[in-house]
Amino acid sequence: MENIPSLEDIHHAHQRIKPFIHRTPVLSSEMINKKAGCSLFFKCENFQKVGAFKMRGAANAILSLPATRIAHGVATHSSGNHAQAIAKAASDMGCKAYIVMPESAPRVKVNAVRDYKAEIYFCNSSLQAREQTLRTVLQETKATFIHPYDNYDIIAGQATAAAELIGEIKDLDILIAPVGGGGLLSGTCLSAAYMLPEALVFGAEPSGADDARRSIDSGLIHPSIDPKTIADGLLTSLSERTFGIIRRYVTNIITVDDPEIVDAMRLVWERMKILIEPSAAVPLAAVFKRPEVFRDKRVGVILSGGNVDLDKIQWAIS
Amino acid sequence: MENIPSLEDIHHAHQRIKPFIHRTPVLSSEMINKKAGCSLFFKCENFQKVGAFKMRGAANAILSLPATRIAHGVATHSSGNHAQAIAKAASDMGCKAYIVMPESAPRVKVNAVRDYKAEIYFCNSSLQAREQTLRTVLQETKATFIHPYDNYDIIAGQATAAAELIGEIKDLDILIAPVGGGGLLSGTCLSAAYMLPEALVFGAEPSGADDARRSIDSGLIHPSIDPKTIADGLLTSLSERTFGIIRRYVTNIITVDDPEIVDAMRLVWERMKILIEPSAAVPLAAVFKRPEVFRDKRVGVILSGGNVDLDKIQWAIS
Repeated sequence: MENIPSLEDIHHAHQRIKPFIHRTPVLSSEMINKKAGCSLFFKCENFQKVGAFKMRGAANAILSLPATRIAHGVATHSSGNHAQAIAKAASDMGCKAYIVMPESAPRVKVNAVRDYKAEIYFCNSSLQAREQTLRTVLQETKATFIHPYDNYDIIAGQATAAAELIGEIKDLDILIAPVGGGGLLSGTCLSAAYMLPEALVFGAEPSGADDARRSIDSGLIHPSIDPKTIADGLLTSLSERTFGIIRRYVTNIITVDDPEIVDAMRLVWERMKILIEPSAAVPLAAVFKRPEVFRDKRVGVILSGGNVDLDKIQWAIS
Repeated sequence: MENIPSLEDIHHAHQRIKPFIHRTPVLSSEMINKKAGCSLFFKCENFQKVGAFKMRGAANAILSLPATRIAHGVATHSSGNHAQAIAKAASDMGCKAYIVMPESAPRVKVNAVRDYKAEIYFCNSSLQAREQTLRTVLQETKATFIHPYDNYDIIAGQATAAAELIGEIKDLDILIAPVGGGGLLSGTCLSAAYMLPEALVFGAEPSGADDARRSIDSGLIHPSIDPKTIADGLLTSLSERTFGIIRRYVTNIITVDDPEIVDAMRLVWERMKILIEPSAAVPLAAVFKRPEVFRDKRVGVILSGGNVDLDKIQWAIS
């Protein structure tokens, strides 16, 4: 597939990955609806395998490879949810996975990838070192590189989250998803465009990493330089493929500040009793920031993941 | 009802409270099952209204009153989940609620009760002061006192959580619930005795508040004196009614230490992405403490609530 995924591509992706993913629930909270002045339908990808929507794209990207390439395994560089997703999907499919990670990656993430039997290559944390190490790995192993988002099979996989949500909750007026590299947002845009063409689609982005906002405004990809935000899943820049889809289909990008993200995350923890990571709280923060956009609408919100680093929380509660 | 609730009483309670409660989901985690060496089915009362199973008993106790008494309202003294449950259930039923709370109660709990339009009477935090204030309130208002657990209508209401679990998950070998005052555990014992008589029923208790353990051992109610545990929902003592049921039906009480409770709570947060309060983690801690009891069994676990005081968590994660 080297064209923008079609509706049929998204449907095929969905059929292909079904045995490897959870169909996640859609939850609502009366209290949060009242506070937001609209009806929110949260697609809970925090309950997805590996705790994030990334499992969808990873599974689809690997399953879309020809058998001859699967035999050599897959590789990526990441210290986040994509690494875990590739490692887990590959392991479930009996495929080898090679993951390049910075030596500084949190022990808990390294262990998670190792638990899925992936082979880990450590390097220093510069992007240059990661890319160099990845090149070496690819040469040595003949594995296939799976980019975390600049890949139409990944995008078609991520699109299945919104496709499930649209299929389950009727008459949504708006969809909103966080934007980092843009894989989830571009997939959400496509599912909405094909399945719910009247709906508006918003991206939600931390103001400390607002490269998507700037890219859409200027019509050129602006890289994310020295991003600073608590939403650590949204530090990356748009790519050619994600930018191409988002600029065409997205209604707008709403930016929010870190304190607004923390408040939204805390509200979900407290009222819905579910754990979401800071990146996943960015869309709800955007809903609160721009109430006039969402008032009285039926809004589908992708809760992208639940991988909070609990080592950073003070556990001596008593 | 002044006899121990029968199966019919529990069924009636269930029918009566259905419009006022959520039917909570039952969740499992492959990873936690693997770690525990058994199959665990978590009944998620953290998703119940007011965030705890207490809503079941409160709703049943109020709905069981004659209309002439409902007209005068209900009262209780509590700073915890029972207060919120009585306030919310009364509000939903158009009944007045009077809640006696210590001045030292956390602001968030006071506000929650106030949000449900209950009338709050503050007193100092001694049990004596609470009881005296409650007596005054009862005299002034002619309201009916709803004890948090020494009340068969409360017990029949709490029993409906286990009844739903047993109805949904077939062939459970064991049920386990936390024990504080014993309302939830005695209700769990009754539902198991009537609906699943072959099953074992365990209570799980913090070792820093092990009055149930000592009471069962000695055959006499031992009050909980100066209890110290992170599981702040389990500080109270058994009562005549709960002790009578528990001593007859419970298989055993397993005690666990606070670090074991924190580890179990953290594991549920991290792997299941749901928020549970420390008291709700006590049964899972007990499963890990006594693996030989649970090995290869199908175990129903009541996750009693999710009201963690998030003010006590350090939110500056980045």
